[in-house]
Amino acid sequence: MPVECTLAELARRCGGELRGDGDTHIHGVATIQRAVAGSITFLANPHYRRYLRETHASAVILAPADAGACRIPALITSNPYLLYARVAAVLTPAAPVRKGVEAGASVHPTARVSMDTWIGPGAVVEEGVVIEGGVSVGPNCVIMADVHVEEHSCLVAGVTLCHGVHVGKRALLHPGAVIGADGFGIANDDGVWLKVPQLGSVVVGDDVEIGANTTIDRGALEDTVIGNGVKLDNQIQVGHNVCIGEHTAIAGCTAIAGSATIGRRCMIAGGAGIIGHIEICDDVTVTAMTLVTHSIRKPGVYSGSMPMDAAAQWRKNSVRFRQLDELARRLATIEKKLKD
Amino acid sequence: MPVECTLAELARRCGGELRGDGDTHIHGVATIQRAVAGSITFLANPHYRRYLRETHASAVILAPADAGACRIPALITSNPYLLYARVAAVLTPAAPVRKGVEAGASVHPTARVSMDTWIGPGAVVEEGVVIEGGVSVGPNCVIMADVHVEEHSCLVAGVTLCHGVHVGKRALLHPGAVIGADGFGIANDDGVWLKVPQLGSVVVGDDVEIGANTTIDRGALEDTVIGNGVKLDNQIQVGHNVCIGEHTAIAGCTAIAGSATIGRRCMIAGGAGIIGHIEICDDVTVTAMTLVTHSIRKPGVYSGSMPMDAAAQWRKNSVRFRQLDELARRLATIEKKLKD
Amino acid sequence: MPVECTLAELARRCGGELRGDGDTHIHGVATIQRAVAGSITFLANPHYRRYLRETHASAVILAPADAGACRIPALITSNPYLLYARVAAVLTPAAPVRKGVEAGASVHPTARVSMDTWIGPGAVVEEGVVIEGGVSVGPNCVIMADVHVEEHSCLVAGVTLCHGVHVGKRALLHPGAVIGADGFGIANDDGVWLKVPQLGSVVVGDDVEIGANTTIDRGALEDTVIGNGVKLDNQIQVGHNVCIGEHTAIAGCTAIAGSATIGRRCMIAGGAGIIGHIEICDDVTVTAMTLVTHSIRKPGVYSGSMPMDAAAQWRKNSVRFRQLDELARRLATIEKKLKD
Repeated sequence: MPVECTLAELARRCGGELRGDGDTHIHGVATIQRAVAGSITFLANPHYRRYLRETHASAVILAPADAGACRIPALITSNPYLLYARVAAVLTPAAPVRKGVEAGASVHPTARVSMDTWIGPGAVVEEGVVIEGGVSVGPNCVIMADVHVEEHSCLVAGVTLCHGVHVGKRALLHPGAVIGADGFGIANDDGVWLKVPQLGSVVVGDDVEIGANTTIDRGALEDTVIGNGVKLDNQIQVGHNVCIGEHTAIAGCTAIAGSATIGRRCMIAGGAGIIGHIEICDDVTVTAMTLVTHSIRKPGVYSGSMPMDAAAQWRKNSVRFRQLDELARRLATIEKKLKD
Repeated sequence: MPVECTLAELARRCGGELRGDGDTHIHGVATIQRAVAGSITFLANPHYRRYLRETHASAVILAPADAGACRIPALITSNPYLLYARVAAVLTPAAPVRKGVEAGASVHPTARVSMDTWIGPGAVVEEGVVIEGGVSVGPNCVIMADVHVEEHSCLVAGVTLCHGVHVGKRALLHPGAVIGADGFGIANDDGVWLKVPQLGSVVVGDDVEIGANTTIDRGALEDTVIGNGVKLDNQIQVGHNVCIGEHTAIAGCTAIAGSATIGRRCMIAGGAGIIGHIEICDDVTVTAMTLVTHSIRKPGVYSGSMPMDAAAQWRKNSVRFRQLDELARRLATIEKKLKD
Repeated sequence: MPVECTLAELARRCGGELRGDGDTHIHGVATIQRAVAGSITFLANPHYRRYLRETHASAVILAPADAGACRIPALITSNPYLLYARVAAVLTPAAPVRKGVEAGASVHPTARVSMDTWIGPGAVVEEGVVIEGGVSVGPNCVIMADVHVEEHSCLVAGVTLCHGVHVGKRALLHPGAVIGADGFGIANDDGVWLKVPQLGSVVVGDDVEIGANTTIDRGALEDTVIGNGVKLDNQIQVGHNVCIGEHTAIAGCTAIAGSATIGRRCMIAGGAGIIGHIEICDDVTVTAMTLVTHSIRKPGVYSGSMPMDAAAQWRKNSVRFRQLDELARRLATIEKKLKD
């Protein structure tokens, strides 16, 4: 349900310096190109500055540097995207959590489910589970034995929590996420693989978001740990005994091998790989499709992807890559010859 | 249910120039190596030409260039794989769509579901959903509020359509696909991530195929758009506000970041990455595991994967890669010295 | 249910040379750093050798080379990780398989399900399915028509087996795995893609483990084949008509394109890519994020990932990569000049 608000009220609730008519009525958010009267938009990316003059929005959120060029009511802030996020949350509040156990859900008699919680159709809650108040367990979720979900978490639909997993407060788990499946532990017995029992669990902190079809494996002996405020995009693979520090954000399709430790406030871009048993310190950024092969002990930005090129040119260069050590030796030989 | 046909009938219905006995009875398709009497095979890949003489097939689909070497009845065409696809569709027709709502399905009373549609056991259809005729909603699918599925689409099993998603006609969605989960929108508030509401939806065109466990996120403000005739393989990640042009095909495990625009008739190979906010024009081919880091404005083939080598050789070369700029400078120094 | 055992009994059942007091009571396994009295630990990775003196474990599994430094009861073996796996299996036995069909499961009357099998709530078993004894079909699994699951296999939860798939004995399939979805077969008809019917199936051998959200496509004409003892981690994509040889292990997020053949006892690390229609011989190791672009005919280790670097340094080197062929030509010119 969208709500209506004055611009002054938005400034009061969300922050930002009000400029222009505080009585301007706002009932929605929109992009700067497609905004209509009654909507508020934002300008965070300089590429969109050209739309500022012609936007049909009734108000705009922007940085002080852009305020001069703005002829409509505005909220001025040093971080327009952040203020936009707050304003959008006010104008488009989430639906209240439903309550009760739907017909077609299956809840084990030993499970302790808060009266304030919703268990959707087709959801399965096994023995010994504890689900606190304000939680939403969407359709066809599977909550296996002895799981504990703290208050106000939301499992959208088709989420699987394997036995003993612990999920903190206000977590948001998207469809197809699988938390607590066995880690990939196998021991080689003369050419045949023997499974190593996976006896740890997964502990997910508060305010964590986990994307669609992301998988987080249970620990082998101790737990896999996802810190408070961690944000995981879709289709991420988190191996057993990984620890991800608080407020780290990881984009889609990244794979993290077993026992890797990632610090706080890191940003890992999409399609990255992190090998097992290494440590990444706090405040590290890893760019897209980079393979992190050793520990990182210094904050900063790290990269390791191959640059794209027209295929014909790339093919020539990549043949040379396979001769690179030889080329370097030939260069050294020439240098020596010229020195002599 | 396989059907039986004469070769002349297949030529009439599917195309191709008939050669040999048009009364040859055909009741199935097979590979050229393992075909048995009564089956029709095809020759599209020159590697398999050696099997043409010895195949036990009763007929073969092949190109004019191969017709001379062929001693069995044949359908001659410039695109044997395409003609094979048509013939296989005739000989192995899909089962007719079942009808009705199975016991164990959960359909909200406000949902409008065609009488000609099948809702499988365990499927959940929420409030306000519209499902047109000839649709198959397989077991344990979840169709959230206000979704619209047009006629003759098929959701095989365990597909999740989040609220408000629109799916066109004759779409085929494989198990575990998640359409319309929240995009990965987060704003940084002094080290803590604040969720940005994801208020757009996903619009899937007609004749789209979406692979198993592929995820397509809803837009932040406007919609994520999948054009008519797009074919997506398994485990692809499509970020919020991505637009994919008509008749583009994308192979498995490719990741497309938010707000990327991909043209029409593109072919993106497996494991590729496409960063956010870039544009790829029509008729572009990207090879496997290439990271597209900037817009592509010219049709053609683009690559950027690292060539594989024996590990010992690769290790030597990759050490040199980290010295590459220095090597280039040393080369320039020598050139200067030799010029002087 | 953990069990209690003496160290002598563990040696007798699992192997290893007993050293010290065979009457030592053991009731659990633990890491060497966190072990408490009553637990047995292991030392397989030399990095953890420093914990050996101070561990609180009651016994330790280790190699002969480490036995001298060990002051507590021990099991000595050349492969401590393997012996640990056996000991852990004895001390933490799996719960016995439940039996019967839960309320809320949907089993077609033509399905033949052993009395010794468990069908969890929300599971769907379609017509013609055969499920043998000791199988566990977890909550919300979908077993489509004519599937056959052999004895003692376990589908944890939310697993989808598409029509006609065959799963061998003692397979372990984790949540979200999709076996037998259509392969990605499309034929181009003047810019429009026509679907190629996928008429093969998937045959999974005995003792196979398949990770969470892994997808294995059905064959186009013949079957996709997963050999006995194969271990697949999470989020792996296996294309149509792939054959994976016995006892091969593949780590998470690897993508294998159609008709690739992988030998026996291979080890493929995470995030690798294997292109279609190639062959990898037995006993090949591929390191992380390597793209295998051609057949491998010789056992050994193969690599092809880009080395990571600080972003500023990487950027300089990667600009040079795009000039690599030119640099090589300039080097050859200098060599020629110096020779003349």
